[in-house]
Amino acid sequence: KLLQFKAQLGGDEGKHVFVLKTAKGTRDYNPKQMAIREKVFNIIISCFKRHGAETIDTPVFELKETLTGKYGEDSKLIYDLKDQGGELLSLRYDLTVPFARYLAMNKITNIKRYHIAKVYRRDNPAMTRGRYREFYQCDFDIAGQYDAMIPDAECLKIVYEILNELDLGDFHIKVNDRRILDGMFAVCGVPDEKFRTICSTVDKLDKMAWEDVKKEMVNEKGLSEDVANRIGEYVSMQGGQDLAEQLLQDPKLSQNKQACAGLTDMKLLFSYLELFQVTDKVVFDLSLARGLDYYTGVIYEAILSQTIPAPAEQNGADEAAVSVGSVAGGGRYDGLVGMFDPKGRKVPCVGVSIGIERIFSIMEQKAETSSEKVRTTETQVLVASAQKNLLEERLKLTSELWNTGIKAEVLYKKNPKLLSQLQHCEETGIPLVAILGEQELKDGVVKLRNVASREEVDVPRADLS
Amino acid sequence: KLLQFKAQLGGDEGKHVFVLKTAKGTRDYNPKQMAIREKVFNIIISCFKRHGAETIDTPVFELKETLTGKYGEDSKLIYDLKDQGGELLSLRYDLTVPFARYLAMNKITNIKRYHIAKVYRRDNPAMTRGRYREFYQCDFDIAGQYDAMIPDAECLKIVYEILNELDLGDFHIKVNDRRILDGMFAVCGVPDEKFRTICSTVDKLDKMAWEDVKKEMVNEKGLSEDVANRIGEYVSMQGGQDLAEQLLQDPKLSQNKQACAGLTDMKLLFSYLELFQVTDKVVFDLSLARGLDYYTGVIYEAILSQTIPAPAEQNGADEAAVSVGSVAGGGRYDGLVGMFDPKGRKVPCVGVSIGIERIFSIMEQKAETSSEKVRTTETQVLVASAQKNLLEERLKLTSELWNTGIKAEVLYKKNPKLLSQLQHCEETGIPLVAILGEQELKDGVVKLRNVASREEVDVPRADLS
Repeated sequence: KLLQFKAQLGGDEGKHVFVLKTAKGTRDYNPKQMAIREKVFNIIISCFKRHGAETIDTPVFELKETLTGKYGEDSKLIYDLKDQGGELLSLRYDLTVPFARYLAMNKITNIKRYHIAKVYRRDNPAMTRGRYREFYQCDFDIAGQYDAMIPDAECLKIVYEILNELDLGDFHIKVNDRRILDGMFAVCGVPDEKFRTICSTVDKLDKMAWEDVKKEMVNEKGLSEDVANRIGEYVSMQGGQDLAEQLLQDPKLSQNKQACAGLTDMKLLFSYLELFQVTDKVVFDLSLARGLDYYTGVIYEAILSQTIPAPAEQNGADEAAVSVGSVAGGGRYDGLVGMFDPKGRKVPCVGVSIGIERIFSIMEQKAETSSEKVRTTETQVLVASAQKNLLEERLKLTSELWNTGIKAEVLYKKNPKLLSQLQHCEETGIPLVAILGEQELKDGVVKLRNVASREEVDVPRADLS
Repeated sequence: KLLQFKAQLGGDEGKHVFVLKTAKGTRDYNPKQMAIREKVFNIIISCFKRHGAETIDTPVFELKETLTGKYGEDSKLIYDLKDQGGELLSLRYDLTVPFARYLAMNKITNIKRYHIAKVYRRDNPAMTRGRYREFYQCDFDIAGQYDAMIPDAECLKIVYEILNELDLGDFHIKVNDRRILDGMFAVCGVPDEKFRTICSTVDKLDKMAWEDVKKEMVNEKGLSEDVANRIGEYVSMQGGQDLAEQLLQDPKLSQNKQACAGLTDMKLLFSYLELFQVTDKVVFDLSLARGLDYYTGVIYEAILSQTIPAPAEQNGADEAAVSVGSVAGGGRYDGLVGMFDPKGRKVPCVGVSIGIERIFSIMEQKAETSSEKVRTTETQVLVASAQKNLLEERLKLTSELWNTGIKAEVLYKKNPKLLSQLQHCEETGIPLVAILGEQELKDGVVKLRNVASREEVDVPRADLS
């Protein structure tokens, strides 16, 4: 949608031809997009505040070293700043690493915070599919040493509340645990060094059939047919607390310490989710893997059931969350802060990232197909006149309205036509016009006209201020 | 205030020593600073919305070329991104040039918009004096071809409203016009090519005595004593509409076309300011010059009368606005958008930039000396218990409160002490505790305790949801 046209710079610039555009992979937000963005932010921030969260902000760039070694292969997508003398800097790639840096630097051992800000990835932008190089992340995290699964359950409650309030249709939240996955791989006979790569193959189950996933495991990753089949049995399992109990009795899994710890926590998590009344949407799903290395416990991902035909993937949440329908994801990462602490002191963390760019684009599409027009201003009344030479009276009344806190506009013209004043209201959705004329001024009233119904009523001037 | 300490990265990073800090000239905002920031933003945004403004957003970086030739000497302070293949990019230096680029690119000829966002200047940071390399700008602009001085007057009304509502103490707003300045220089006998440089000398009158300014004009800028004295007479003049009328009769100024146009507009401006009831704070001051080249008409600057002993200047507004006490500034710039338009089509603009970083720092200082603690959360009630084994009941009640929209917290512990629960309320300012015990559960009530007064009242459970 980027307008690109050649512009000839005049003046000092001489005849140099340049393209008038935004940088590749970026976009402006126009007032309509901003109005939708604000609505989404308000719903999400209200939820975070209802749960007692604080907010912080960090600079848009970090020391290059702060980001080094945190994103594996994806590090090549980091934007570096030019070395203009001084420190080597990079634009932030996500909000999690700056958060961990903030905690370690300020020796903070517990905090419940949210952070909504833009992050930068020098990815190949698929803007037609809604992926950008500059995009928002919207993170909520709870850091601190607490009793098991209570903060984890609150993160899921938050996702549930936000998706309900955004009214995006039916959804479900898949839950699993990194320790259950690792235990499962171990008892199925996957060699330790292949855990991660097999994990990312399992992660494809939401887009690929089991037969294809199995082929990749056997043909590309070198597992035996037997091992793959054993994995296949586990990853087809879905359930709730009951499944966790059943697997704790599983003759193989129950022998694995990691798996048992994960399953015991899963049982506990579901008991809390029951109290939070969210189990109708939460599924314990052994096929959920998620890509990021730093997860150490519970992981989750929220998926919209009915895929609103969106221009496709959004670069929300993190890379792992970018599957069709995925609108939130997160998990527990107990080791990341320790990477920044000089003494390696750990601060356990659990968090969730709301895939807000995807949500923006769904909301934008809904707005386009809806009969209700998106308003970009909140103006309640336009101060107008049908007669000439009333500019001063219009300005005076407008000022009185502003002073009483009423959102008011006036056209910046000496003698605008009544029609163009009414048109302005219709175009921008202003519901009321306050019409001034000689008669009204004499009577000390204002004629208030409802733009939609055309009803008019005289209001005493004194009642307005 | 930056915590800087050496950290030894463990694991894969080997023994490399790095400094755990934010980039030079940048800072994190902690929750308390964010709470103050939010309060300031809310007041300012409410005012913009009351005046019918929309908002837009632009990317944090622009094509390097977009910024080229817009900032004169200050261009050396622009942050460039590293050439990683592809376009050459720079971080935005202000919000005005991206705004002009946005208007030209989208062929927008009229809009009233605000934009609050961070901008970047590779300045020598004086952080002890509150100047940063990453800082907020907060701009309101009206673009479009309108009848003279109406939008200009609204900008001043907005500054007046915002400074009143922020409650920063007494202030005044200086107004002048670039055309009056130019006309004045012409009739005093300043050679055309020296207008700009003499203008920036005049701009120093808020920090230097006239005698020193005069010395600079004569000794450094090469004006004759006579010419300087004539300027001196004009720039000592302050007044209102009356002064504009008087100067229109001035035998010399009245002969200058530019000056007459400016003075006629100044008269008109004051007549509108009268209707807006803001003339008590607005002064027509011939010594106001402001640095930026792109102003073409009215210019203004708001100054706090009583300088709250701040850590000193803030990098708010633009460079020109950074004088002691200055908290807002702006003016008319009718030529900037045309620089981006391929056919040079002009879009007249007038705007104001609120020096929000300076305002943050004044508010922070007020908060520090105030007896009232700044709350960083909005939690209304903590769900607590005095007895053991009531975690599940606490979680259940908390969830019920969330579901009814009440902002509630619960400690993430199985059996927290009542004292530590009450302490959490006192530390974070939560006003109410909902205490659950065996007796309350039996009676179907919740004991609501006012943390400050220690009063307790039993509330039927049913009344809470």
